[in-house]
This record gives sequence, structure tokens and C-alpha cells, in this order.
Amino acid sequence: MKLFKTEILSLFIIVFSYPTFVLGQNKNPINAEQMMIRLSEIAIDSLYLDDYISILKIESEASVRLEPGVISIYPMFQKENPTEIRILEIYANKEAYLSHLQTEHFQHYKTTTLHMVKSLKLIDMEAIDEESMSNIFNKLKK
Amino acid sequence: MKLFKTEILSLFIIVFSYPTFVLGQNKNPINAEQMMIRLSEIAIDSLYLDDYISILKIESEASVRLEPGVISIYPMFQKENPTEIRILEIYANKEAYLSHLQTEHFQHYKTTTLHMVKSLKLIDMEAIDEESMSNIFNKLKK
Repeated sequence: MKLFKTEILSLFIIVFSYPTFVLGQNKNPINAEQMMIRLSEIAIDSLYLDDYISILKIESEASVRLEPGVISIYPMFQKENPTEIRILEIYANKEAYLSHLQTEHFQHYKTTTLHMVKSLKLIDMEAIDEESMSNIFNKLKK
Repeated sequence: MKLFKTEILSLFIIVFSYPTFVLGQNKNPINAEQMMIRLSEIAIDSLYLDDYISILKIESEASVRLEPGVISIYPMFQKENPTEIRILEIYANKEAYLSHLQTEHFQHYKTTTLHMVKSLKLIDMEAIDEESMSNIFNKLKK
């Protein structure tokens, strides 16, 4: 009977520590001060818009999935002017960005879309609220 | 001994279902197709930049914390030109946006910063990858 109580106790410890372990895996060591944030402004030749969007979609999805240092590549277009693309890009740090430029998926995107791009501005940004930025997109998580 | 086995089995069921329950609470019913995405471009009079940023920071934090339909208000400024503010705003739907405009924190922001704003463009955007957008900012979650 003593053994029974010990085993029940061990299981209770597992019950209450396991969720903490599972949730703990979502934590990450990203340092807000080292983050690199960019808002890219890209105008696309309307002839190639569908092709461009297909290629960008594959590239941004692959970057976020395969590269731990790519926090977000969030591509959008202006409703009133769909050839005006805006991409919010967030990298963990400068090294993550430089490494992203060397990946196969980025190189494929860059070379196959070069002739579709009419203009390109890469604008470096700073987040206004670094403390709460990690919570800002929480409502989108699944 | 039979009772012992049944109790152990029940505890195992709890062990493996509890994390699913805890993680399940993060799910949300946001419908990507109804979302309203906006990229606001705001130029601020440099005389008032510090004041404007303090007020915006309080307003965006309160909006995300208090309004379930405000998915993100993500304010940034251009590094090269800090009076150029950009805000990525994501609302669950049009109703959430209209309700946001009526809140005390938004009204306070709007009235106290009116004289600080040199120009304001509210540009409606569409996300290029609605399917994966809910995963895009996952690496930022705490």
C-alpha cells in the first residue's frame, strides 16, 4: 500500500509538470534588441503579378518553416493597387538575415522574379514597443 | 489490485489529455477571410515625436490587451527617418475595427495626437498567404 501511494504521487507530479514542459518548448531566446525589422516596398510588373505572388508565397512559407532565425516574412498587397507589394520581415539578428540570403529558396525567389520587379525599396524599421512585441501576434497562433 | 490498475490507467489518461486541454485553449476562431489588414503611414512633426510615441505605445498595448478583435497593432518607425511611423494593424473583422474606433484608449490617442500628425495614409492591405499567416508570428510567442 505504501508503494501504491508513492506511485500515485509520482503520477500527480507528472500530471502537473508535463504541461509546463510542453508549453515551455514554445519559449525562445530571441533578443528584441538584436532583431532586424524591415518593411520592403516592391512594385511588380502587372504582366507577371500572379507568377510573382506564387513564387513569393512559396519562398516566405519555406523561410519561416526552415530557418529558425526568420521570425516573420509577412507578405501583403495594397487592395487598391495590387501590384504594390509590402513585406514585413523580422529576423532574429543580422546573422539570421545574412544566412537567409544564402538559402536555396531565397536564391530561387531572387533569380526567378528579378525581371518581374519594377522597383524595390528595403526600409529598415525599429519596433516602437519591444517589450510587448512578443505578445502582439499571440492571437494569431494556432 | 484491480482497483490499483484502474486508478493508474485513469491517471495516465489525465497525463496525456491535460496538455492537449491546456494547448487547446490557445486556439481561436478567427476567420482569415474576414480579417481587416491595414498599413498606416503617418508622418509626425519632429517637435512632438517623443510625446507621440509615448501615447501611441500606450494605445497600441491597450488595444491588443483589452480588445479581443484587435489581433495586432504593430507600430514601427523608419530607422533613417524616425518621424515616419508605420503601423501594421490587423483586426478580426470590420466590426472589430469599428468598435476599436469607439474605445476610450483610441479616442484619447486620436484627440491628443491630432496636432502632432503632419500626414496620414490608411492603406488597406490583403495578406498574400492567408493559410499560413496564423503560423507566421509563432516564433515571437512567449
